[in-house]
Amino acid sequence: MIIQFEPDITQDQLTEVEDHLANLNYKSRLVKTQKGQYLIGIGKGAFDIREIGYQPGIKDIHIVSDDYKLVSRKWKVGATCIDLGDDAIIGGDELAIMAGPCSIEGEENIANTIKHLSENGIRYMRGGVFKPRSSPYSFRGMGIEGLKLWYELAKAAGIKIVTEVMQVSQIEEMYDYVDIYQVGARNTQNFNLLEELGKVDKAVMIKRGISGTIDELLYSAEYVFSGGNENLLLCERGIRTYEKASRNTLDLNAVPILKEKSHLPVIVDPSHGIGIRDYVPPMALAAVMAGADGIIYEAHQKPNEAFSDGAQTLDYSQSAKLTHKLRQSFKLVKSW
Amino acid sequence: MIIQFEPDITQDQLTEVEDHLANLNYKSRLVKTQKGQYLIGIGKGAFDIREIGYQPGIKDIHIVSDDYKLVSRKWKVGATCIDLGDDAIIGGDELAIMAGPCSIEGEENIANTIKHLSENGIRYMRGGVFKPRSSPYSFRGMGIEGLKLWYELAKAAGIKIVTEVMQVSQIEEMYDYVDIYQVGARNTQNFNLLEELGKVDKAVMIKRGISGTIDELLYSAEYVFSGGNENLLLCERGIRTYEKASRNTLDLNAVPILKEKSHLPVIVDPSHGIGIRDYVPPMALAAVMAGADGIIYEAHQKPNEAFSDGAQTLDYSQSAKLTHKLRQSFKLVKSW
Amino acid sequence: MIIQFEPDITQDQLTEVEDHLANLNYKSRLVKTQKGQYLIGIGKGAFDIREIGYQPGIKDIHIVSDDYKLVSRKWKVGATCIDLGDDAIIGGDELAIMAGPCSIEGEENIANTIKHLSENGIRYMRGGVFKPRSSPYSFRGMGIEGLKLWYELAKAAGIKIVTEVMQVSQIEEMYDYVDIYQVGARNTQNFNLLEELGKVDKAVMIKRGISGTIDELLYSAEYVFSGGNENLLLCERGIRTYEKASRNTLDLNAVPILKEKSHLPVIVDPSHGIGIRDYVPPMALAAVMAGADGIIYEAHQKPNEAFSDGAQTLDYSQSAKLTHKLRQSFKLVKSW
Amino acid sequence: MIIQFEPDITQDQLTEVEDHLANLNYKSRLVKTQKGQYLIGIGKGAFDIREIGYQPGIKDIHIVSDDYKLVSRKWKVGATCIDLGDDAIIGGDELAIMAGPCSIEGEENIANTIKHLSENGIRYMRGGVFKPRSSPYSFRGMGIEGLKLWYELAKAAGIKIVTEVMQVSQIEEMYDYVDIYQVGARNTQNFNLLEELGKVDKAVMIKRGISGTIDELLYSAEYVFSGGNENLLLCERGIRTYEKASRNTLDLNAVPILKEKSHLPVIVDPSHGIGIRDYVPPMALAAVMAGADGIIYEAHQKPNEAFSDGAQTLDYSQSAKLTHKLRQSFKLVKSW
Repeated sequence: MIIQFEPDITQDQLTEVEDHLANLNYKSRLVKTQKGQYLIGIGKGAFDIREIGYQPGIKDIHIVSDDYKLVSRKWKVGATCIDLGDDAIIGGDELAIMAGPCSIEGEENIANTIKHLSENGIRYMRGGVFKPRSSPYSFRGMGIEGLKLWYELAKAAGIKIVTEVMQVSQIEEMYDYVDIYQVGARNTQNFNLLEELGKVDKAVMIKRGISGTIDELLYSAEYVFSGGNENLLLCERGIRTYEKASRNTLDLNAVPILKEKSHLPVIVDPSHGIGIRDYVPPMALAAVMAGADGIIYEAHQKPNEAFSDGAQTLDYSQSAKLTHKLRQSFKLVKSW
Repeated sequence: MIIQFEPDITQDQLTEVEDHLANLNYKSRLVKTQKGQYLIGIGKGAFDIREIGYQPGIKDIHIVSDDYKLVSRKWKVGATCIDLGDDAIIGGDELAIMAGPCSIEGEENIANTIKHLSENGIRYMRGGVFKPRSSPYSFRGMGIEGLKLWYELAKAAGIKIVTEVMQVSQIEEMYDYVDIYQVGARNTQNFNLLEELGKVDKAVMIKRGISGTIDELLYSAEYVFSGGNENLLLCERGIRTYEKASRNTLDLNAVPILKEKSHLPVIVDPSHGIGIRDYVPPMALAAVMAGADGIIYEAHQKPNEAFSDGAQTLDYSQSAKLTHKLRQSFKLVKSW
Repeated sequence: MIIQFEPDITQDQLTEVEDHLANLNYKSRLVKTQKGQYLIGIGKGAFDIREIGYQPGIKDIHIVSDDYKLVSRKWKVGATCIDLGDDAIIGGDELAIMAGPCSIEGEENIANTIKHLSENGIRYMRGGVFKPRSSPYSFRGMGIEGLKLWYELAKAAGIKIVTEVMQVSQIEEMYDYVDIYQVGARNTQNFNLLEELGKVDKAVMIKRGISGTIDELLYSAEYVFSGGNENLLLCERGIRTYEKASRNTLDLNAVPILKEKSHLPVIVDPSHGIGIRDYVPPMALAAVMAGADGIIYEAHQKPNEAFSDGAQTLDYSQSAKLTHKLRQSFKLVKSW
Repeated sequence: MIIQFEPDITQDQLTEVEDHLANLNYKSRLVKTQKGQYLIGIGKGAFDIREIGYQPGIKDIHIVSDDYKLVSRKWKVGATCIDLGDDAIIGGDELAIMAGPCSIEGEENIANTIKHLSENGIRYMRGGVFKPRSSPYSFRGMGIEGLKLWYELAKAAGIKIVTEVMQVSQIEEMYDYVDIYQVGARNTQNFNLLEELGKVDKAVMIKRGISGTIDELLYSAEYVFSGGNENLLLCERGIRTYEKASRNTLDLNAVPILKEKSHLPVIVDPSHGIGIRDYVPPMALAAVMAGADGIIYEAHQKPNEAFSDGAQTLDYSQSAKLTHKLRQSFKLVKSW
């Protein structure tokens, strides 16, 4: 159950509701976000909404049978839009296109990418400065200095920054330079990181775990939301299966399922999903048809010289063509 | 290696080429289909095409490094079209839409379906008369009498029949009443069945195995082609993964990969793929964007009363809407 | 529900029971095997055993809630033993060890193997004469002539033959020369083949599908049993997962689960299961500890020269050592 | 390549070796642990050990072709033993048995468990005080106060503590009260946590990721070792597959593979692996036969009242019997 409160609810009113739930043997948890105040009730007994009634201070009451609550569409039927300022809104009438290199490689690489994005009207730039790597001996990114450099150039061009945060201590360090914190597939169930991201007021995009279920992704989002941050994006990026013809198996089934289960926007990453350059465009287009709110892909001026993931990275010409087709496809979907 | 012969090659000319391969320690296999005559050479040594040269009787010679040969795009760059007569052509300028009930249930069910298909310009009707069922105690279809009944009604309406063949003895029994023999996911590696289907001159659609790899699907197609039948369709129908939110995981990654590896048309079955009615349309549309040549899905006048698979079956209103959107999407893809 | 009949039940008595089930809206199916006569009742309504009561002709009545019936342990608590004659009994007090080459290669290969088996007290010889191969261009076995040759030599040595049957037409062809028909992983759901194997009176060993569930294996066994053949063995042989360090993932979890769900003996194939020679012995030993009734593995005088599967095949010295350890392990298990 | 140094190597000698590698275009990384000093060289060119030669300060030089280096058996053929003091040694002549509740529940629960362990000669107690939970609304453990309480009672009884660490900030907080830090399956690729655990001098047990590959587990161990901590244990705990008959698929194939690839001890967790109480003992015994150095399982005085994971938890009677059988099995293995 989710009880939404009015902004001006008094402490006494709130306590009364909490007591009422306690009497019903419901555990309750108060959640305050930038946008609202909620009381989550967890319990098994039958619950009659009228018993609480719409007392002063209560805005709405919802029965949510899903095990995740705040991210469920059962209480919030409309889609959530993430407003990053400067008319950069995700989940609304425009497809969010996020492109850029796997790793931020230096000033020239940033400048080239920004030029490409600007020429194609792309508002979001992806890139890693903290890179999780299977081997401790691999390149792990330019770190915070790389991010600062990137921020300067991106801000000037009106480009929003999407980049991965790997640990709690980086959240604050990165705060001034990031628009969307990305939680990577290896950290989808790093619950301490998720909880801390609940305390910031910037958007968070959570990637599905390498073999994460759709429900686990929603639970992870619930950690952030119940921690206080509603600005959430979900990202499908391919799962691990027995098939070896592609790097991962991009699971587009997740798109309509997530869209029905949750009110949060869904982004698809075909680059990691299928992992082979030539197949990125058809999978990106398919993702739009499946209902995605945005696409995140890897683009580089010279993919074969990229520091990492070159085999799945588009060059700028491919990226420009894809962008055009993505918008046509999104327009067709919106016309229905 | 594939050596294509001219139709008028003499036995002597042919023997000479076979001997040449034998001298190179290549195993060779002669394949005669309705459309052509090929000699497949399997060997490891270096091979200089000029050694054979374009002698009389040889039309073309191709080095094919893939382990499957005749179904590979390495020797036949253009797409294969399957012509079923009456302007029903798969793999060309029109999206092939195949719809119908999971099981053929009787005359009324057939008639209703045909009416729905005709009203929506759908040329292919799917339905099972021989049903593979996990349990020996489940309904196993109407059998050959059901097929004969279906054929009469379908033929009158100009509708082509797609239906599953489960064993060798059914091939001949079904021959007069079927346009496309479907090999089901449980029989993808029933090699005896595949070989026998190589001997008929009707189209064969092979579904990917329940956990079949993309390469295994191509090998299975190679069985039919090398058996003498070029009229082949490949069908992605969902694979088995850990994810429980959908019945199977429709693997759209397979579409662009199959299209690049092979010249054969690719059909997608979103009904079995995702297994939940509401998600069938977005996945069908996504499949078109990924490059599919056709879509096969389950439709029934009253899905909840269907003999089998009702939960993944569209009603006629949903089917009609989907058909419209599929054609718009296909048109957009073809415009690029 | 399973109703076991006395051997001397009259047709009238039988009809009365069938009518009774029909009145309860239960579908019923009469199964006659070499060992008994059963009526399977499938229905949803509550069922009171006393309503039928133990009329003349009825031996026992069992409620079986599993979807598979005759192979379930719910009606037959004791373990089924398969008696192949000459004191070769599987599922009892001795571990069944089955060894031999992947493919039967010729007389010398057969003779060498039999010598090795005899020296080590191994009673069952495995080997393929009909080989299912992914590619149509691979070696497909010596065929029926190979089997006849094998049979002569094996019979003289008192060795039982386990070999794969691929299609219905081979059942009769092989009948005189085989002790255990093996159904391979690609044919686990070849229901026509299973049904025909229900009609013979020789033992059948069904391998789990390449990505078959445990329940599907039991259903497949139900096909054979309900077809009339109780002489059934189940075989775990590795499933397909994302892990690439082994050929397949031998799923030993299946052993205790199958042993609890079913009364049938369980055999484990570590050769195909893990697919790497050095790891076959530890997995074979682990299988015994997990509760296996038998182990089937590949052994060859010169594994690196084997026609197929050499990389997972033991040489005779490894095989002899393994045999010794398997028996010690089985003895320890039986001591508990 | 791994160059092992003598303890008394001088800075000049060390610099000379580093320069030599740099000249060969090898990247090098110096690793200092409690037990030794190593220089890891990463490069592609051919490398002649004699070029460096055994200069003063160099103890040994090893070519390690694996991508992980320090955890590979290629340089350290003998097995690593982890000595926790008080004759508690893992990886040697005794099987390490670790048992206890899923979550530490309070003083009585701790005392009961310790009594059970002491009576059965079990030296290691498992239990969670920081619990990673999919849902933010679930019980997350007693925290550090629970650990302190546990430590007091365990120390008095000579029992070693194995418990999960979830984030960097807990490492120091837990340090005085823990014998083995466990890294859970959701944190196997939490590289920051792994690196920090490289800086402590207590043992670390890394669980395989939920769908982690065997190589990824070894890479994760490499993070800790190269961070400075050699006291490492690897733990197989079940992977995610399509099979639903068990909670996870305990992958015993990983045991012989890990033992061959690495010199580190391998522990198996059948409780999480198969997830069903009755099947835990056979899988534990199978693990010993497969080569495991230790078994970790869940035991509770009243499994059905356990705070979490009751369905896979043994009661004390089952635990005592299992312990006995495990020791018999281990003795048999050691006798070979």
